Amino acid sequence: MPPPCWAPPTGFITPSPARPFFMTEPCDMSALEAAKAISDGHLTSEALVRSCLSRIETREPEVDAWSALDADAALAEARLRDASPTAGPLHGVPVGVKDVIDTAGLTTSYGSPIYDGHHPFADASCVALLRAAGMVVLGKTVTTEFANRHPGRTRNPHNPAHTPGGSSSGSAAAVACGMVPLGIGTQTGGSVIRPSAFCGVVGFKPTYGRVPRTGLKFLSESLDTIGVMARTVPDAAAFAAILEGTAVAALPELQGPPRIGVCRSPAWAEIERDGEAALRDASARFREAGAIISEVNLPRTFDDAPAAQMAIMAYEGARELAAEREQNWDQLSPALRQSIVEGLGISRERYDKARSTQAACRSSLSDAFGRIDVIVTPAAPGEAPLGVGSTGSASFNRIWTLIGAPCVTVPGLSGKRGLPIGTQFVGLPGQAAYTLACAHWAHGVLTR
Amino acid sequence: MPPPCWAPPTGFITPSPARPFFMTEPCDMSALEAAKAISDGHLTSEALVRSCLSRIETREPEVDAWSALDADAALAEARLRDASPTAGPLHGVPVGVKDVIDTAGLTTSYGSPIYDGHHPFADASCVALLRAAGMVVLGKTVTTEFANRHPGRTRNPHNPAHTPGGSSSGSAAAVACGMVPLGIGTQTGGSVIRPSAFCGVVGFKPTYGRVPRTGLKFLSESLDTIGVMARTVPDAAAFAAILEGTAVAALPELQGPPRIGVCRSPAWAEIERDGEAALRDASARFREAGAIISEVNLPRTFDDAPAAQMAIMAYEGARELAAEREQNWDQLSPALRQSIVEGLGISRERYDKARSTQAACRSSLSDAFGRIDVIVTPAAPGEAPLGVGSTGSASFNRIWTLIGAPCVTVPGLSGKRGLPIGTQFVGLPGQAAYTLACAHWAHGVLTR
Repeated sequence: MPPPCWAPPTGFITPSPARPFFMTEPCDMSALEAAKAISDGHLTSEALVRSCLSRIETREPEVDAWSALDADAALAEARLRDASPTAGPLHGVPVGVKDVIDTAGLTTSYGSPIYDGHHPFADASCVALLRAAGMVVLGKTVTTEFANRHPGRTRNPHNPAHTPGGSSSGSAAAVACGMVPLGIGTQTGGSVIRPSAFCGVVGFKPTYGRVPRTGLKFLSESLDTIGVMARTVPDAAAFAAILEGTAVAALPELQGPPRIGVCRSPAWAEIERDGEAALRDASARFREAGAIISEVNLPRTFDDAPAAQMAIMAYEGARELAAEREQNWDQLSPALRQSIVEGLGISRERYDKARSTQAACRSSLSDAFGRIDVIVTPAAPGEAPLGVGSTGSASFNRIWTLIGAPCVTVPGLSGKRGLPIGTQFVGLPGQAAYTLACAHWAHGVLTR
Repeated sequence: MPPPCWAPPTGFITPSPARPFFMTEPCDMSALEAAKAISDGHLTSEALVRSCLSRIETREPEVDAWSALDADAALAEARLRDASPTAGPLHGVPVGVKDVIDTAGLTTSYGSPIYDGHHPFADASCVALLRAAGMVVLGKTVTTEFANRHPGRTRNPHNPAHTPGGSSSGSAAAVACGMVPLGIGTQTGGSVIRPSAFCGVVGFKPTYGRVPRTGLKFLSESLDTIGVMARTVPDAAAFAAILEGTAVAALPELQGPPRIGVCRSPAWAEIERDGEAALRDASARFREAGAIISEVNLPRTFDDAPAAQMAIMAYEGARELAAEREQNWDQLSPALRQSIVEGLGISRERYDKARSTQAACRSSLSDAFGRIDVIVTPAAPGEAPLGVGSTGSASFNRIWTLIGAPCVTVPGLSGKRGLPIGTQFVGLPGQAAYTLACAHWAHGVLTR
């Protein structure tokens, strides 16, 4: 059985002085556990928020996960929840919202100095939906510039010399060190799965098009997907359902250990020794736990998938950011300017071809699922790289984002530096619930 | 040959005292014609904008097409264009922007009292793109509430007792009566094509996903498409290319009169006598001009298309508008509240099924294109209905919006009340340029 709440996966990650686990603190509870405690009268939303704020006070100087935080407003919202009837299965639970998503009451800067002090008129749809479900917006979490490459100031909570990954850097780091039980992220290349893996949390990117994007600052409309960070798979599933505006349901029961297809993917040349060992280790444990393991070779259409994802992202990014490109060029980072120049250099024909590749890959993936239930593939090349100048490579994520497939990364393994390594599960578009169930099973196996 | 600029289609629409044509006024020129005059030094952007403002002064009391207008700002932008080198093929040309699209300098209210006096921080991408191409934002045009059903105050410029259609009511009406040569609209059901047809202008809805939507207030992400209103097909094509952030190219040369498939569509039960006569009349004229006319029966998958479009629109709308639903319920119209309640009543399974129908229809449409180059189908059941309480039916549009196909309506015919009737051309997704070329040919035939 998976852990009821997020415990340090003993034996895989060495607990470090930089990551103290006060397991009795409310802020270390899983979201569903905390919500149950609130619903049962053993905890208040206010006490939970205070616990999170206290953890933030301790860890924020080193981790730097938050771009905007209004403790008084969060406590007021929590007290309002405590005074109101339960509105959903995560009633009273606070969340961190990636700062490319609008919040009416909190500065929303999209990781860019252009938007310093910007106050949107309205909440993004997903923020309104979580508030309507009785949840609390704790604050905004650091993003890279417009969710592109230029990093924010966040550091990996396991070791501040390392990147937390990106672009959803703050949400992953905050959830990892107990600052908040849930975070919202977005993924265009690998921006939910990679930081989740680097920070040792569960990351879930739903099927493309499921979470409404009103109030999300677009980087690439055909790819941008709102996802979540959590400490357990059921937490992630419940939170994502709320953001999608659908009923929260229990994960489907597996009929037995899943049939797992191990996929090296077109990015295999980038795998690091730690990443390779982790995939081998995970496969062995899954097999030991009863799973049927086979190797998956993706259809040949996928050979063009990495380049297609990069072309779509650059082409669309240069146009979605037209206002900033035309009116605020001097305030863009060199990395973003380069992305925009690249995007403007891509012909319409090349873009159309990339969109055709996207469609072809999406429809051909089901061929790979004939004899398997779910794909297992690395979440990243290995551990979080040293330094915070880059958020690492999205190579193991971009092909799945391209086709809009649901992706889940679960923690439980680590590399030679003691930093977390994620194991990524990928399902067919539209089959997120089943993919989550497989990932939940696997999380249990890896943290047993 | 199509007319070089928009002339009253003599013999089809009876010129009325309510629609005086001062063909010598700059505001009555086509956009490309005006841009050429500016580029050649025969006209200035400022003089063109003054001419538009003068027409607005005359017609606005009756037509009520504008939700925000800042004459001084528009004139200042025009003078800036006059002082700058030509930045594109529509340099110096003013446009009306539907008020569901953000403009940094002008109030953006999305047709809702919730957003009275709302000033967005930044221009929408498409607005930044048109400014970068040297065009001028003249003002914001009236939209129905959040581009849904509840009408704005605009009236049909051909007869103020009739609706201009919607939701892009103001843009269609403004272009029709010479207030501005170009307008931006959006279509989720039939919101570009229908008002264009009712007001007697060219309307063009590009393939889904072509015009970047940053800064568009969403109603339904899977359907919302930014499009344009113009007086000639080449104007519409050039303007749309600018909004897409691609190079403006001449329309492709047809190798001869097109092979036209006349499609009654699943909405045929709603056709009015005028609409039926117009389609018959148009087909006869196209055949006379050399086109090969056949009848198109859509694949059976399309039987479910109208219901699928309505389910997707309602389901997504109820979620995209989560902030307004949760925080401003009292300020929503009864019609919108009803749409939201309907959307919340649609199950996730029903929504998923509708998305599957969408995908199936999209991929099966090419079967219908075996022996034809383009589909001709009514743009609306008939003339603009009497009264302004409803913007009319989107039944002849929604299936094409569902599949993301490019649609063009051209004027040239009229009904028994002397109001315009549009003829709609539909192409395969991604084949907008060819569809526009066919529509341009047809516009020439109908206004010969």
